Amino acid sequence: MAVYTEVTDEALRAFLAAYPLGALRAFRGIAEGVENSNYALQTEAGDFILTLYEKRVDPRELPWFLGLMEHLAARGIDCPLPVKARDGQALRTLAGRPAAICTFLAGVWPRRVRPEHCAPLGAALARLHLAGADFHEVRPNGLGPAAWGPLLDRCRPGGDAVQPGLVAELDGALAGILATWPVPGALPTGQIHADLFPDNVFFLDGPEGKPRVSGLIDFYFACTDLLAYDIAVCLNAWCFEPDGSYNVTKAHALLSAYQRLRPLSEAERKALPVLCRGASIRFLLTRLYDWTATPAGALVTRKDPLEYLRKLRFFARAEGPASLGL
Amino acid sequence: MAVYTEVTDEALRAFLAAYPLGALRAFRGIAEGVENSNYALQTEAGDFILTLYEKRVDPRELPWFLGLMEHLAARGIDCPLPVKARDGQALRTLAGRPAAICTFLAGVWPRRVRPEHCAPLGAALARLHLAGADFHEVRPNGLGPAAWGPLLDRCRPGGDAVQPGLVAELDGALAGILATWPVPGALPTGQIHADLFPDNVFFLDGPEGKPRVSGLIDFYFACTDLLAYDIAVCLNAWCFEPDGSYNVTKAHALLSAYQRLRPLSEAERKALPVLCRGASIRFLLTRLYDWTATPAGALVTRKDPLEYLRKLRFFARAEGPASLGL
Repeated sequence: MAVYTEVTDEALRAFLAAYPLGALRAFRGIAEGVENSNYALQTEAGDFILTLYEKRVDPRELPWFLGLMEHLAARGIDCPLPVKARDGQALRTLAGRPAAICTFLAGVWPRRVRPEHCAPLGAALARLHLAGADFHEVRPNGLGPAAWGPLLDRCRPGGDAVQPGLVAELDGALAGILATWPVPGALPTGQIHADLFPDNVFFLDGPEGKPRVSGLIDFYFACTDLLAYDIAVCLNAWCFEPDGSYNVTKAHALLSAYQRLRPLSEAERKALPVLCRGASIRFLLTRLYDWTATPAGALVTRKDPLEYLRKLRFFARAEGPASLGL
Repeated sequence: MAVYTEVTDEALRAFLAAYPLGALRAFRGIAEGVENSNYALQTEAGDFILTLYEKRVDPRELPWFLGLMEHLAARGIDCPLPVKARDGQALRTLAGRPAAICTFLAGVWPRRVRPEHCAPLGAALARLHLAGADFHEVRPNGLGPAAWGPLLDRCRPGGDAVQPGLVAELDGALAGILATWPVPGALPTGQIHADLFPDNVFFLDGPEGKPRVSGLIDFYFACTDLLAYDIAVCLNAWCFEPDGSYNVTKAHALLSAYQRLRPLSEAERKALPVLCRGASIRFLLTRLYDWTATPAGALVTRKDPLEYLRKLRFFARAEGPASLGL
């Protein structure tokens, strides 16, 4: 939940004057998203989301993110479409921050994932990967395998305070992951979301009351990386139960629906377990870093890093792709 | 900013099924309000606010609050109107909490108060008081003068850590306030909002671009108390500049617009300075209590109690009603 930057009404009015959106009707901070400040904006033209990009986002990368969303939306993906101001620019400045208005997407993110969510999720992920295939600008994954060692180093001083022996366990796990990580070119690469957690996927009731995906949001970790790594992120984020168990029914639904649109290669299938371990350690490390670095009393919700230690251990024990639902 | 209770989609759907509002379209946590969990809810019938009442609100008092809002809305006050379910009940249960859906109010609360906001505010406050005159159910002010001594006692252990000498200064100030507080019956009494801070007042552009009040929200401190005390709360909340100075232009605009609709009696005018000191100490004490009692790392924004010490000192020095803008 986050509103880091307050916007005065005068500044907002001046900002909106650049857009062909009519008069302001409502403006409320949204208690979702942890990286940026998000506001629900209502004007005479309808509902929008206004995002102010906070310090974790590099302003030089914003044109890539907005360009990707525009590209995907043009290909029928239900993602936020950046709204251009009268001068043709979508990326502007408000309250001293880079800022953009995007279209509002209907739908509700699932607070509790059910198996019925996982097939539509898998299909939406495959469609996202296919739609991104002709977006040719590359953004390296700043939180990919090359970043995990340095990130672990930054957690070294405080890591064992979270759990005794944690740093040594992660040293061993990371070495194992990096030793078997797919070499460049071995697996299909493209534009991935890289953070497709439940709170970034909206659903509405489809035919017969079955959930259908109505929106994918928050593309600010998107990058150019292994497509199957995006699946591994989703298996981590969607297929564990609150008690820590892996729900292979959910995973199978996700993977099957994905493969109906983009079948995995044999190399991708074989690599899936290590990609899952990689995704576990990526979220483990950023959470661990936030946990050790966030000042007590800060407004940001600190997420439990050990949730991902349990997932990492599960994937390390898993015996091959079949046990993951493939 | 607050979403304390997460609502699963199944629970939300089951809850909504009791209402004649059509299918769910969107549901987002709102990063505003500190007492309850608020969600922007969109259904086929339009925009609404769903509130889950958290532990600071006594469930037995909710019918009073909802009844007052219904009463005021029926008399033309732009306040949230509780939406009744098909069984005629507006107050229900969701995720183990009392919950209600209210109408959505357009408008934007002023992040920076300008003098032009204060006349419409004063008029809106007077209209609120007049509209409440025939709502006869009494709710005593749980944070009125009788509560301040016990509240100060609870701040005694930690108060001086916030500022040395603070507790002794507040002991002296409170004794002075209570010694000159109006006796029961001396001033007009009625239904007051009691927390009409800028984030509880929405504005839209009116004729010639001048702000007009489009909504008053968050009635969960409302109670039956001195009407002029509500004015004192607003003078505290709206008429100080960020540098701590009292803006008599704003105060005069507020008071004049109020008096055009409900002129103050001579007794109310004379009492205004002590009512202002009372309002200062009321917010000072609740903030001080929250400051000393909130665990470090909690998600709630702790508001600076010393802001209200400066206001209290200003009102204590003020020489009569005229210096307050009357």
